[in-house]
Amino acid sequence: MTDAELAQPVATERLRQQNTALVLRSLRGDGSASRATLAARTGLSKATVGTIVQALQDVGAVREDDAVEAVRTGHSGRPGRPVVLDGANIVGLGLEVNVDYLFGTALDLSGRPVLSRQVIVSRDGDLLASLVNLATRCLDELVGQGRRVLGIAVAIPALVDRATRHVVDAPNLGWRDLDLGATLAAAVGQDCPVRVDNDANCAATAELDHGAARGATDALYLTGTVGLGAGLVVDGAVRRGAHGLAGEVGHTPFPGSPTARCICGRRGCWEASVGLRATLRAVGLPADPGTDPVSAGEEVARLARRDASARAAVRRVAADLGAGLVPLVGALDPQVVVLGGYFVPLGPWVVPVVQRALDRGRGPGRATASCRVALSTLGLHAASTGAATDVLGDVYAGTLALG
Amino acid sequence: MTDAELAQPVATERLRQQNTALVLRSLRGDGSASRATLAARTGLSKATVGTIVQALQDVGAVREDDAVEAVRTGHSGRPGRPVVLDGANIVGLGLEVNVDYLFGTALDLSGRPVLSRQVIVSRDGDLLASLVNLATRCLDELVGQGRRVLGIAVAIPALVDRATRHVVDAPNLGWRDLDLGATLAAAVGQDCPVRVDNDANCAATAELDHGAARGATDALYLTGTVGLGAGLVVDGAVRRGAHGLAGEVGHTPFPGSPTARCICGRRGCWEASVGLRATLRAVGLPADPGTDPVSAGEEVARLARRDASARAAVRRVAADLGAGLVPLVGALDPQVVVLGGYFVPLGPWVVPVVQRALDRGRGPGRATASCRVALSTLGLHAASTGAATDVLGDVYAGTLALG
Repeated sequence: MTDAELAQPVATERLRQQNTALVLRSLRGDGSASRATLAARTGLSKATVGTIVQALQDVGAVREDDAVEAVRTGHSGRPGRPVVLDGANIVGLGLEVNVDYLFGTALDLSGRPVLSRQVIVSRDGDLLASLVNLATRCLDELVGQGRRVLGIAVAIPALVDRATRHVVDAPNLGWRDLDLGATLAAAVGQDCPVRVDNDANCAATAELDHGAARGATDALYLTGTVGLGAGLVVDGAVRRGAHGLAGEVGHTPFPGSPTARCICGRRGCWEASVGLRATLRAVGLPADPGTDPVSAGEEVARLARRDASARAAVRRVAADLGAGLVPLVGALDPQVVVLGGYFVPLGPWVVPVVQRALDRGRGPGRATASCRVALSTLGLHAASTGAATDVLGDVYAGTLALG
Repeated sequence: MTDAELAQPVATERLRQQNTALVLRSLRGDGSASRATLAARTGLSKATVGTIVQALQDVGAVREDDAVEAVRTGHSGRPGRPVVLDGANIVGLGLEVNVDYLFGTALDLSGRPVLSRQVIVSRDGDLLASLVNLATRCLDELVGQGRRVLGIAVAIPALVDRATRHVVDAPNLGWRDLDLGATLAAAVGQDCPVRVDNDANCAATAELDHGAARGATDALYLTGTVGLGAGLVVDGAVRRGAHGLAGEVGHTPFPGSPTARCICGRRGCWEASVGLRATLRAVGLPADPGTDPVSAGEEVARLARRDASARAAVRRVAADLGAGLVPLVGALDPQVVVLGGYFVPLGPWVVPVVQRALDRGRGPGRATASCRVALSTLGLHAASTGAATDVLGDVYAGTLALG
């Protein structure tokens, strides 16, 4: 064996993909850079960076920024010209399914939204057919624009088995043991891989990537859709638990739990006190929203603005929300709790009450007192945006090749 | 640039360290192997594996297994002779500080315990001086045996700041804002790095590495020392939260929380219902254990074996333990809850009650019903073993060089 062999580990396809991901992450996180700067940032040789950049240019993922002069190297021309992340024609498609609506969001490689579609669905209609229809329409439109769709991820308010792409149980949708992955894959063709995930996990991904949890290592996201679910960000990533059930907090009892009857048939669930149905009922509205949760929350907010008893009712919901969050935040120690869905329009009343509950907190270190309460800024886009982000995330993780 | 440069990423010191760790992990996880098998397992070239193995032999971390014939390759001699993890002379030292005892455990690179020392400390004594004394005695003994100590980790029932190595607040020890890292480092000298961590996190590391949580990706460990703390294993690693406070569950309220007064001065904390003091009080013993928690638990167990009302009291404690675990397990979805300390001798009465509470669980997916309740098998060694494991873990993670 030669000295060169001794000094260098063998180059494998896996390694090349990981090094490509390293370059892409550097361009996304630290901005455009010359090849020399990229080599310095990543620890890769200039030769390796050159090869990777060329391959990324070939697929349209990066381009040279012609507008910028090569000032850093002191030389004019190619070596110093910055490479910028482009990838406007490389997209991930995220689809959210919920009780009264579907949402489609496509993001390009740099995270820019390039397509956004909402579909209101009637409860008598065929939800699955509507989803397939939305998926194919989005795909047709994206392909028509000359874009390459790396994959589709579907976000469901449900227990899902990500490995088999089955919806195990989506009580609010009436889906149970549905092979959603195969159904959708059959409709869109083999070139576009399909995955299925829980909506709270997807939304947490979106909040972490470019929402209210950006920059946090640990965060707790509450969906605020018809069902109450959580997405857990622990140590920089969304975590799903041993069986993909992490964050299923809606039907656990909470401290001081009242005995309200839950839609699951039991008493004392957290969702029965702070869920959308409970919130609507608390202000005297029909418990069935019949519309998307943000619109339902806006209706409650209109009442709260003009009526003191509605405001008081919303604050009582917020107090129960805070009581349930104290042990969770105490156990997980997140920097931020992000409230989504119908909680967002109710923010003016909900956030101060929940923040006060956390500030009072408990325990010697009082993780709860270090935790900020924030509102989602992604609205109804959260889950579909996170689903699209997950597809693109595989490129940045080095597990999906662009070539 | 040459073709060779194009094809191969540059070898860096970091990369070499990571590749060394890859080889060590393979030997630890998958057993001894020839160089060729190691190359196949790791994806590294045979030449690289050869260089790494030679360097590891030089520092005594691996050796060739002379007793085994080279059967796999069909050739006799060196190439097929298996490399085995050795490292008997390379150790990490873990020290646990608790209310009535200190514990020291040293593990060699393969995880075998090579030293175990318990020291009973009087409450009037100088705990810090006792700790320094134990540390230097353990070091002297290990060095006298010709071993190299890679580092010391101290496990404290406290809020600790791992970055500054300060004990922020250890109410049960009476330590507050103590620069334990610097104190201990001054006593043991610069060659031996010192780190400070929370005892529940250390114990969780030990349970994950070679205890009751082995093989789990997600687990919840409850200390069962004088204070009640949790260690969280999420997605294969112990997680500490945004401010190092994750798992501080003792002083949060729990569902159905009774109003017992806690040592922290508040009412309704989980520790006030299920902590060691509460357990002793429940069976009519003095609330101050005055001994280590396992011995205290054994005393309670002796009572429970002969007295039905003591058994009933222990089962009531277990019911409160289960009630507090349901929302935590529901949120985190672990495969296993591991009970340590005084819970272990009380296992015959505690485990069935807690398991039943989880089996009944809540929610659509019922993560709680998929979660097993297990007893720690590490006894008083858990935290010090985990602390030593953490030191060695840096070698396997590629962040600490052996050379």
